[in-house]
Amino acid sequence: MTNTQLTLIQIDNYGPWTVTPEPRREVDLQTLQSRLYADLSQLFGNRDGYVFFTRFDNMVAVTNGLDTDSHALIQESIGNRYPVTISLSVAVDPSPASALGVATDQLQDAGSAQDRGRTEILRGDALPEPERHEEDVQIAHFDVNNATEKYTDRLNEFDSFINIEQGYAELMQYMRKAHDSLSFFVGGDNIIAVCEDVDVAGYRDAIEHVREAVDVDLKVGVGTDRTAQAAGMAAKHALETCREENIDVVFG
Amino acid sequence: MTNTQLTLIQIDNYGPWTVTPEPRREVDLQTLQSRLYADLSQLFGNRDGYVFFTRFDNMVAVTNGLDTDSHALIQESIGNRYPVTISLSVAVDPSPASALGVATDQLQDAGSAQDRGRTEILRGDALPEPERHEEDVQIAHFDVNNATEKYTDRLNEFDSFINIEQGYAELMQYMRKAHDSLSFFVGGDNIIAVCEDVDVAGYRDAIEHVREAVDVDLKVGVGTDRTAQAAGMAAKHALETCREENIDVVFG
Amino acid sequence: MTNTQLTLIQIDNYGPWTVTPEPRREVDLQTLQSRLYADLSQLFGNRDGYVFFTRFDNMVAVTNGLDTDSHALIQESIGNRYPVTISLSVAVDPSPASALGVATDQLQDAGSAQDRGRTEILRGDALPEPERHEEDVQIAHFDVNNATEKYTDRLNEFDSFINIEQGYAELMQYMRKAHDSLSFFVGGDNIIAVCEDVDVAGYRDAIEHVREAVDVDLKVGVGTDRTAQAAGMAAKHALETCREENIDVVFG
Amino acid sequence: MTNTQLTLIQIDNYGPWTVTPEPRREVDLQTLQSRLYADLSQLFGNRDGYVFFTRFDNMVAVTNGLDTDSHALIQESIGNRYPVTISLSVAVDPSPASALGVATDQLQDAGSAQDRGRTEILRGDALPEPERHEEDVQIAHFDVNNATEKYTDRLNEFDSFINIEQGYAELMQYMRKAHDSLSFFVGGDNIIAVCEDVDVAGYRDAIEHVREAVDVDLKVGVGTDRTAQAAGMAAKHALETCREENIDVVFG
Repeated sequence: MTNTQLTLIQIDNYGPWTVTPEPRREVDLQTLQSRLYADLSQLFGNRDGYVFFTRFDNMVAVTNGLDTDSHALIQESIGNRYPVTISLSVAVDPSPASALGVATDQLQDAGSAQDRGRTEILRGDALPEPERHEEDVQIAHFDVNNATEKYTDRLNEFDSFINIEQGYAELMQYMRKAHDSLSFFVGGDNIIAVCEDVDVAGYRDAIEHVREAVDVDLKVGVGTDRTAQAAGMAAKHALETCREENIDVVFG
Repeated sequence: MTNTQLTLIQIDNYGPWTVTPEPRREVDLQTLQSRLYADLSQLFGNRDGYVFFTRFDNMVAVTNGLDTDSHALIQESIGNRYPVTISLSVAVDPSPASALGVATDQLQDAGSAQDRGRTEILRGDALPEPERHEEDVQIAHFDVNNATEKYTDRLNEFDSFINIEQGYAELMQYMRKAHDSLSFFVGGDNIIAVCEDVDVAGYRDAIEHVREAVDVDLKVGVGTDRTAQAAGMAAKHALETCREENIDVVFG
Repeated sequence: MTNTQLTLIQIDNYGPWTVTPEPRREVDLQTLQSRLYADLSQLFGNRDGYVFFTRFDNMVAVTNGLDTDSHALIQESIGNRYPVTISLSVAVDPSPASALGVATDQLQDAGSAQDRGRTEILRGDALPEPERHEEDVQIAHFDVNNATEKYTDRLNEFDSFINIEQGYAELMQYMRKAHDSLSFFVGGDNIIAVCEDVDVAGYRDAIEHVREAVDVDLKVGVGTDRTAQAAGMAAKHALETCREENIDVVFG
Repeated sequence: MTNTQLTLIQIDNYGPWTVTPEPRREVDLQTLQSRLYADLSQLFGNRDGYVFFTRFDNMVAVTNGLDTDSHALIQESIGNRYPVTISLSVAVDPSPASALGVATDQLQDAGSAQDRGRTEILRGDALPEPERHEEDVQIAHFDVNNATEKYTDRLNEFDSFINIEQGYAELMQYMRKAHDSLSFFVGGDNIIAVCEDVDVAGYRDAIEHVREAVDVDLKVGVGTDRTAQAAGMAAKHALETCREENIDVVFG
């Protein structure tokens, strides 16, 4: 059974900051956001976690193995290097969607995302070490079959992008409703999902659903382990097996 | 009349690189991609251009005012600092979608995105200085009405994200079909569109369409100028006016 | 005749910030400083300027070709992305040392480096476009003969470093006193000097002085042009000629 | 008794790379070097280590607590994100100078720094966990008394810099010869030394030596702990005590 530890990362009072005293230059905001994400990716990644950029002002991390002290240090390190601060809220649940729900509630209880006085909140409890298991995290790595041949090398780049986006939009909603799982676009034609225990049939359904709804063909490699990093790497290797052996769903 | 200069940016042979000799760690790929985008944002932004991350391995820039030498220098600078190289293809058209279509064709003609021998391509012609005008670039900056109150401070963060994504997915397709315009999610609840001459009625239709299709309420500030930076800043100020005066569409 | 435009860059109130409310983690300060330098290097470099890290909290840039607006934009961009702000002071003089003297005075007149109220100062005048010439900037690029064979591949790395440092310490003082020129260590065994019109005999003297004082053998390529970037690249090519033809001083 | 674990970090074949096929733009090299240093600072810093930039192409890290796997992961992460690779050599000794000597020898034995075939070397043994103690690392954090008042707010910035450099050049040589200790300039008026067991009298001598030789007044805070991070933070707090109580040498 999975037991996913998720951390909601929220930039404090970001919206108002971007237009105070007047609108800041977009290229600087884009640079700030993407570098903040890159740094968080390394800070969590160095501790075997994964971070997804989501909306950039709100990000989601899979943090099995990171305790409160690690979270505090990451929060401090960002505060030392950026003009903005971040709040963090941690929760654990077999269902990723439920874990994120609890994490969101905890942060909302501390105040609004646009409350100037609500900064550097750190809430919630990490999974205690003795309760951690080999199957806590299930990661599914999807990509689009023949994306380069079918889209990138043939269509107007924006139409390629629309196709990928449609595939993603369908998958994220299906996985959320059918499996309480959270799917994130990670660039190219790749989607990484943090899943509750989903079996082969479950993934086949999801792929089938996306194909029928928007005519985008996916395949998926799945990995399960104690941390996001280990499960994610297993998923990547499984996806390579999909590619080599022309199979839709492979468990690593 | 608009005359948009667009540049398609493509990482050369990126897919194969990410799994050679075996899959690279996801946190490093995420760091690489987001920092490459941040750097391009600065490199184009220092020359009054805008870059959108799109799929990260393929990015789109609005580059009115940048000549071929500037493109070559950006290409060289990335090659000096990253383990990957980029190809660039430039095209100009009143319709942003058509400009990107031509830019895509030029790059596809040079070879596949996964052709190892096709690296650091630089194709296409910039808009000659004497042909540049004050109304070449139209930028529309959309955001979601009361996103913090309706979504961020109330829903599970993933459901907030699904709502924003749905709004974006609808808008990108509508603007593409109805107005030959290209819309890009830029974080938070913000979408920036590069538009052909769209008038107030056109933007009202787009907002209405998104409201009906997925129940997401948008407003939009619009700016027009010689460069993306100038048009984009005018759009931001217009969006502030929307906010203050509670209007759906404002031209800056 | 040279006419060097120099900009003094100073982080506002940095010392106190690093220990408030208590000492910040050194690794974060190091990251902040070196990334700020990297960003400034790109921001000035994109406008054909050079920046030297010097003490990191005080940096020196060669900025021929950059007007006040460019400086203001760079200052704003840093303020948008860092937890600290910078002040800038610009001055022009045939002698680089005198230009930096004037730039320093202007900033000191505005208040102490540790005055909390003195932030984002921008003082001084850029060289007007009509007064710019092909010989405004002279850049000399020094390196150590056979540094890899003599030091890196043979000595304890710290002793290699001591040798390089000694060569640098001697050269910086000699060039300052004898030629009103400013020399900066730029990594490896490389030193870049911003010089007043120095001739071949002047460079030979400097090399001879360093050899006698600390037994470190230098060679130098020299370039002259309208901007730091153009002069610096000419200097690099001249240094390659030194290497190939085994000559101590080459003018590009 | 100290037992310092040092890691020599060397960019593979860097010199030739910077001029192949012809000299690369200096601003890009400066950006590359300083960002590589920033990333290493975070990668080692996230594991309680310290990195010093030294010559940038050769860097020195204090790595007590990092095993071979951590080093391998850092090496891989850099290889995934930069156009250059790094070699690492680890050694342990009560004397920091001797540890770096052994680390240097190990790397030199593997081939020249400019040998194209010698890439991503990882040599040497980390201190086994059971042999680690509370007093393994001694860090001394020096700064210059009244640097802002005496130099920054009064002198031409280059002359301030010459004074700081002279103080550093003297200290680095004295600490190397008298105490087998390695001193690194870290920006501003700060020098951090990795020391063998040096007592109060030893630090007083060093300060006295620098004052007599070049008339630069230093003070120093000293910390001792299992890791560089913990010892370094203790040293910073001790330095604050120096400042508050006007004492030259304080042990934390």
